[in-house]
Amino acid sequence: MDRREQPREGVFWDIQAGRVPTPPAAVTLGWEVVDVDPESGTLDLAFDAGERFLNPAGTVQGGFLAAMLDDTMGPALVATLPPGYFAPTLDLQVQFLRPARPGRILGHGEVVKRGREVCFLSGRLTDAEDRLLATGTATARIQPMETPAAAVPPTSEQRG
Amino acid sequence: MDRREQPREGVFWDIQAGRVPTPPAAVTLGWEVVDVDPESGTLDLAFDAGERFLNPAGTVQGGFLAAMLDDTMGPALVATLPPGYFAPTLDLQVQFLRPARPGRILGHGEVVKRGREVCFLSGRLTDAEDRLLATGTATARIQPMETPAAAVPPTSEQRG
Repeated sequence: MDRREQPREGVFWDIQAGRVPTPPAAVTLGWEVVDVDPESGTLDLAFDAGERFLNPAGTVQGGFLAAMLDDTMGPALVATLPPGYFAPTLDLQVQFLRPARPGRILGHGEVVKRGREVCFLSGRLTDAEDRLLATGTATARIQPMETPAAAVPPTSEQRG
Repeated sequence: MDRREQPREGVFWDIQAGRVPTPPAAVTLGWEVVDVDPESGTLDLAFDAGERFLNPAGTVQGGFLAAMLDDTMGPALVATLPPGYFAPTLDLQVQFLRPARPGRILGHGEVVKRGREVCFLSGRLTDAEDRLLATGTATARIQPMETPAAAVPPTSEQRG
């Protein structure tokens, strides 16, 4: 079945089709979709790990690899959502297996289990020679896009 | 005791004193030292969470908060190291407690336990109104700066 025959909607597909701009965080990471399969909940991406992400040792600062993993796992889930829904990450775990040199980094994300609200995700990053750089897992919660702040209820100390 | 009477060396202090440039990853995050105490292993920073870190919901993409936590916890340890040593992060865990709006974000990092090589770190991010945005823990390994790639031994498939 050719998925292109069924035009999809939702924030991921609106970005893909150019109906809305690519989010700034994705632009900063040099985010590029390689392959997406919402039926299986998988997403393959490429990132541009430029000089701007380097630590004093000349390798990519681990935190930016974490950002790439988050921006791989999250969109793998978001690509499966109907219009008007989003899925903020609740927690993120990353293991850094190998120093990452600047250049193209490939990301693979999967929806391990999709609940009604809470979803479990996994992902990995590899370099251009297919060496594993980092692996990650995350928990995300599906919620309406209109109320992103609803992830945490307002508290008494919150100022208007 | 006035710590300024004892000029310190090592990569953190070389950056602080302007003897070496601020690492690109720190520049990208808008990294700014607020307070550092290598005796207690604590570090307070400020980050500039600009538009470039936003997700489709208009809040800071969680991955960039993870990058800030990594760049808070790691330097809290690195500030305690002698010249020629560095401490790459082995793993990182982050909990996202509240959506982060663009603006100034404060980071606090602590060395929870410093081993001879392996060290355990914790950190937290707060917004300008002192609301907790994210908490994290990390494991890092002290190693000589000259051989950053030594974190992972070369394998047979590694190409020269």
